[in-house]
Amino acid sequence: MHMSFSVAVAGASGYAGGEALRLLLGHPEARIGTLTAHANAGTRLGEHQPHLRSLADRVLEPTGVEALAGHDVVVLALPHGASGKVAAALAERGDDAVVIDLGADHRLVDPAAWEAFYGSPHAGTWPYGMPELLHPGERTAAAQRTQLAGTRRIAVPGCNVTAVTFGLQPGIAAGVIEPVDLVAVLANGYSGAGRSLKTHLLASEALGNAQPYAVGGTHRHIPEIQQNLRSAGAADVTISFTPTLVPMSRGILATATARLVPGTDPAAVRAAWEQTYADEPFITLLPEGQWPTTAATAGANTALVQVAVDAAAGRVVTVTALDNLVKGTAGAAVQSLNLALGLPETLGLPTEGVAP
Amino acid sequence: MHMSFSVAVAGASGYAGGEALRLLLGHPEARIGTLTAHANAGTRLGEHQPHLRSLADRVLEPTGVEALAGHDVVVLALPHGASGKVAAALAERGDDAVVIDLGADHRLVDPAAWEAFYGSPHAGTWPYGMPELLHPGERTAAAQRTQLAGTRRIAVPGCNVTAVTFGLQPGIAAGVIEPVDLVAVLANGYSGAGRSLKTHLLASEALGNAQPYAVGGTHRHIPEIQQNLRSAGAADVTISFTPTLVPMSRGILATATARLVPGTDPAAVRAAWEQTYADEPFITLLPEGQWPTTAATAGANTALVQVAVDAAAGRVVTVTALDNLVKGTAGAAVQSLNLALGLPETLGLPTEGVAP
Amino acid sequence: MHMSFSVAVAGASGYAGGEALRLLLGHPEARIGTLTAHANAGTRLGEHQPHLRSLADRVLEPTGVEALAGHDVVVLALPHGASGKVAAALAERGDDAVVIDLGADHRLVDPAAWEAFYGSPHAGTWPYGMPELLHPGERTAAAQRTQLAGTRRIAVPGCNVTAVTFGLQPGIAAGVIEPVDLVAVLANGYSGAGRSLKTHLLASEALGNAQPYAVGGTHRHIPEIQQNLRSAGAADVTISFTPTLVPMSRGILATATARLVPGTDPAAVRAAWEQTYADEPFITLLPEGQWPTTAATAGANTALVQVAVDAAAGRVVTVTALDNLVKGTAGAAVQSLNLALGLPETLGLPTEGVAP
Amino acid sequence: MHMSFSVAVAGASGYAGGEALRLLLGHPEARIGTLTAHANAGTRLGEHQPHLRSLADRVLEPTGVEALAGHDVVVLALPHGASGKVAAALAERGDDAVVIDLGADHRLVDPAAWEAFYGSPHAGTWPYGMPELLHPGERTAAAQRTQLAGTRRIAVPGCNVTAVTFGLQPGIAAGVIEPVDLVAVLANGYSGAGRSLKTHLLASEALGNAQPYAVGGTHRHIPEIQQNLRSAGAADVTISFTPTLVPMSRGILATATARLVPGTDPAAVRAAWEQTYADEPFITLLPEGQWPTTAATAGANTALVQVAVDAAAGRVVTVTALDNLVKGTAGAAVQSLNLALGLPETLGLPTEGVAP
Repeated sequence: MHMSFSVAVAGASGYAGGEALRLLLGHPEARIGTLTAHANAGTRLGEHQPHLRSLADRVLEPTGVEALAGHDVVVLALPHGASGKVAAALAERGDDAVVIDLGADHRLVDPAAWEAFYGSPHAGTWPYGMPELLHPGERTAAAQRTQLAGTRRIAVPGCNVTAVTFGLQPGIAAGVIEPVDLVAVLANGYSGAGRSLKTHLLASEALGNAQPYAVGGTHRHIPEIQQNLRSAGAADVTISFTPTLVPMSRGILATATARLVPGTDPAAVRAAWEQTYADEPFITLLPEGQWPTTAATAGANTALVQVAVDAAAGRVVTVTALDNLVKGTAGAAVQSLNLALGLPETLGLPTEGVAP
Repeated sequence: MHMSFSVAVAGASGYAGGEALRLLLGHPEARIGTLTAHANAGTRLGEHQPHLRSLADRVLEPTGVEALAGHDVVVLALPHGASGKVAAALAERGDDAVVIDLGADHRLVDPAAWEAFYGSPHAGTWPYGMPELLHPGERTAAAQRTQLAGTRRIAVPGCNVTAVTFGLQPGIAAGVIEPVDLVAVLANGYSGAGRSLKTHLLASEALGNAQPYAVGGTHRHIPEIQQNLRSAGAADVTISFTPTLVPMSRGILATATARLVPGTDPAAVRAAWEQTYADEPFITLLPEGQWPTTAATAGANTALVQVAVDAAAGRVVTVTALDNLVKGTAGAAVQSLNLALGLPETLGLPTEGVAP
Repeated sequence: MHMSFSVAVAGASGYAGGEALRLLLGHPEARIGTLTAHANAGTRLGEHQPHLRSLADRVLEPTGVEALAGHDVVVLALPHGASGKVAAALAERGDDAVVIDLGADHRLVDPAAWEAFYGSPHAGTWPYGMPELLHPGERTAAAQRTQLAGTRRIAVPGCNVTAVTFGLQPGIAAGVIEPVDLVAVLANGYSGAGRSLKTHLLASEALGNAQPYAVGGTHRHIPEIQQNLRSAGAADVTISFTPTLVPMSRGILATATARLVPGTDPAAVRAAWEQTYADEPFITLLPEGQWPTTAATAGANTALVQVAVDAAAGRVVTVTALDNLVKGTAGAAVQSLNLALGLPETLGLPTEGVAP
Repeated sequence: MHMSFSVAVAGASGYAGGEALRLLLGHPEARIGTLTAHANAGTRLGEHQPHLRSLADRVLEPTGVEALAGHDVVVLALPHGASGKVAAALAERGDDAVVIDLGADHRLVDPAAWEAFYGSPHAGTWPYGMPELLHPGERTAAAQRTQLAGTRRIAVPGCNVTAVTFGLQPGIAAGVIEPVDLVAVLANGYSGAGRSLKTHLLASEALGNAQPYAVGGTHRHIPEIQQNLRSAGAADVTISFTPTLVPMSRGILATATARLVPGTDPAAVRAAWEQTYADEPFITLLPEGQWPTTAATAGANTALVQVAVDAAAGRVVTVTALDNLVKGTAGAAVQSLNLALGLPETLGLPTEGVAP
């Protein structure tokens, strides 16, 4: 059975849009439709994405509902605040495309959390594109997949959120770690910041340098992490969250630690992670003693996870590695799209990284 | 008044030894004496340290007490386990050189802590080469400087230890953070691992990659951090400590967090760090809102520190940046040596980094 | 029609072997058979190639004809000198596998050239795995493809050789550049050196550094370049060839220049490159003014080429970018294998790079 | 004898201005005066140059003659086109400061060459800040030093120009290489492009990438190289010149090759370079067989040079490594300033690099 679909990508000249295209080009059922951009409209895609050889001569159209209408799927890789309007305008025309938002607009359930961190009115919540998210009472993810099956709207998770959620949710669900006083520190590649012209994103500033940002509880991914860990069973969640830019283009290495619930048998810790991820196609709990590295996930829809108990510190330490543009963004989008369209969840998604 | 001194360096073909030489070449009172090596004995220094132009034609002698004797100062940049014997043999000959150990052998006060993490008999404790270390009851460092004045033995601190200690000790001393349940995650440059031929240290493995190591409470720097924070006033210290290698040659960015003591006024937090570091010549608390970056410290004996209160998480977040080979090793050695010899503490030490 | 084949890989724990596996995992007709290694025999592949998720639990067997026999295809990623013996031993057993050598042993036609650069007896010449190589009188490559069709032995070209050949052969064949006094300078990623434990390959030596190697006419790829350009029509070839290691894991950027044949119309220059590469599936002559970058080819079997006439200098300048492990090694192997097996030449080979 | 001087720096928030400040802070006779900027006027220097600890609290004034007047020395690190006006306005006020231009405006002697490559009227020629430049008939540099002694205007050379000139001039002067058909290919760090917000200078574009620019005879440094090699004795000079950006912040590795003059004894080649550089304080011809690396020059006013004869190719190959911001810009400025002020040429200039 074939279930070919056409897909338009808005924001095709940026990093997230480019990665969505790269994955869709490798998807056996996807046909690439219209590509749009804002400032780069009218230019060839090959000028901006020289790695996408087969689309090099495609000319970018101006982002707007006229260009995006008439496809089976629309992927929005836009600055936050823009996706809600595009989706509404499509709906108004009677266009029933599956709309996938790679941005932040529709991830949060709680409008107050949105407004506190983004300072603008909330645009509404869409089904959350993380099939592996545990729901209350679950030890292996099923309910989120059900939620995504057949949906016409998908809000793709934040890349840092994905890494921290994968690291901690098994322990929350199993009740072996405390959901409060979590601490996460991340090493982040620069592509997560997008193709924006800012001084601190220049190569000269990045090379030979490690620089933190959004320190001290201000990062916009914090409420989304809390939401996910509440989904996994936490009553309340507090987390200290610090991302740091390091000189690599792709990749997130998230070190997330939590207090071990007093009296927990260390064996129960590993068992919790094993149970949750044993059958996940894109999340691997590594053999004991082997720690995740970001390079092993480059270009792949893979998250690598490891967990250890530091008895002296009274903490469980987890490390998660993933490619921010793939499992952290565009791969999660395609995986969720497969569910939305009723295709096999893993269809067209690479699991082998490009290393070294 | 001049107080010129001669200095021999053992392990001159390695990274720590090379950095000691670079700094000593810029020291107005130092005269470089014998240089020794193990496997590289008999070769020109210029083959191994092509950046040390003025010493390029020096031939390395085999490391041993014969070559090292007869200097005012001996710097030991040797694998751990070796320095105690060299110092003893020098003493036996009646050689009264100031001996500086860049390795770990003589840092720990507690033999049991040494044996637990290193698995070999303890070699004895030397005065600790961290002039900025707070002693019980201190809010600004004085006692450690007194301890170093006139000493003939110096144990230079571990580089990761220095970064974490500088980040946390003001809050411990001021009683505004809890000394238990500390969490530190570090981004580390590769030179910290020395010039050792190991697969995970190859360029192909490092580029585009972030990799953790010694996760879960096994890193040998842990007891040294605990010792320092006890010196700063903590009754007991527990810490989860995770270093991660990122693709840079030099630099440590240490994100160290601690629980805010309940009821503490946030203003008291900043005041604690300000008080401790206001007059330190080599530690700078950055203006509020500016975060440390490692590149700003490259080649300099400078540590940059910032602190913020994350009220929602109930944690104080500190970030410290330094150059592992300078303030983390060879710069601390020269600074302590200045104190040992009765020279001005800052003599010959650069504070301006080489950036970008 | 299906034409599934089994394939064994010798040297599976190295970079070239790993990349062959990555590509073969994405090949619709390949079934991965035995994996072998030398020092790493007995260990899991996942320890060495953590990015190859689907083969992580495969145990490496000792490299030898017993392990390799009985497959349709054998890929040899071995130190030079080893492949001839393995192939002979397989033939002796009556094993008629297609044998692909990723090493240098069987590339050169002239035994004297081999002995001059490698200092050992020549092991014989195998059909050369560069389908795009021009033969005398050709302007588009056909004869080499014929030579590869149905072959049981393939000698995969050197990665630097491939980049320089692609850059210069159209101009040689068209008679618009002189084949003597060529100059090629390359920026090379570290993976080209393999996973060997050498000091200059350490991350600390590579980061923030550019270092040349094999300068002054000593590099072993020189006779192979000469052989290829003679194939493209040159009577005699002289070339100054200098590779330089730069801080990236993958990629070759080859700047190769040649004297413009006096009196040549500049338009004829571009026309020559256009004609040769217009229909090549894996070589793209970029639009005028756009220059190749290595990142655009990462992970892809793509070579990007550009050419310009520097009239004032009297030289034609070409720049070629490719991924040394893909189009430079393992991709060329699979492409040639497709021809050997009678499969479509492009089957299973990615053309989209993983960027940024 | 003391000869303290005050120095103002215009463009202090950029990379070249920052490096001038770093070196001047280490100069025993320099007192840092006014610092100016354009867009960053009114802000603290510490926001832009966090590595310059001792000047962190200096506030930048708007660039203009009012702010710059009244100093012994004025360093101009401005976009090209600006320095001539500032110098003229200072002269008009009777201000007799030594004015040093780090930009391109006053390097070229030939107005036609300027206009062909820059497209604007020529601003006049200033004494050229390369003390090591050979003049006709010289084998060791003296005349250029004479020209700089006591001058009130200095035009600092281009960084690429310096690397290529140092590589080739000894052979030109000795008559052992042809001055025509030269080929230079450079690996360049990103700081050479300044702190400009351009897409191709972003970290995500730079990491894991090598990208050429200004290929095919268009780079503005070409006429300056020709001018220098004519100074060294060439009747006419033709050169193919290709810079390539590689993922490092600082450093130039210039591979420059030339045709060996037929019949030249190879020993005469090395002798030529030895003679020219034997007594140069900042240029080192490495021992035979050791090749320059950029990391060895980081932060130092050092150029490392090597030369070899490739007899089969009929070419002499030279490789030069230097730090584009030091020997390529700010170090050359201070060195020339020392000569202008009658100070020892080497005063205050580091020769030891910061490596690894």
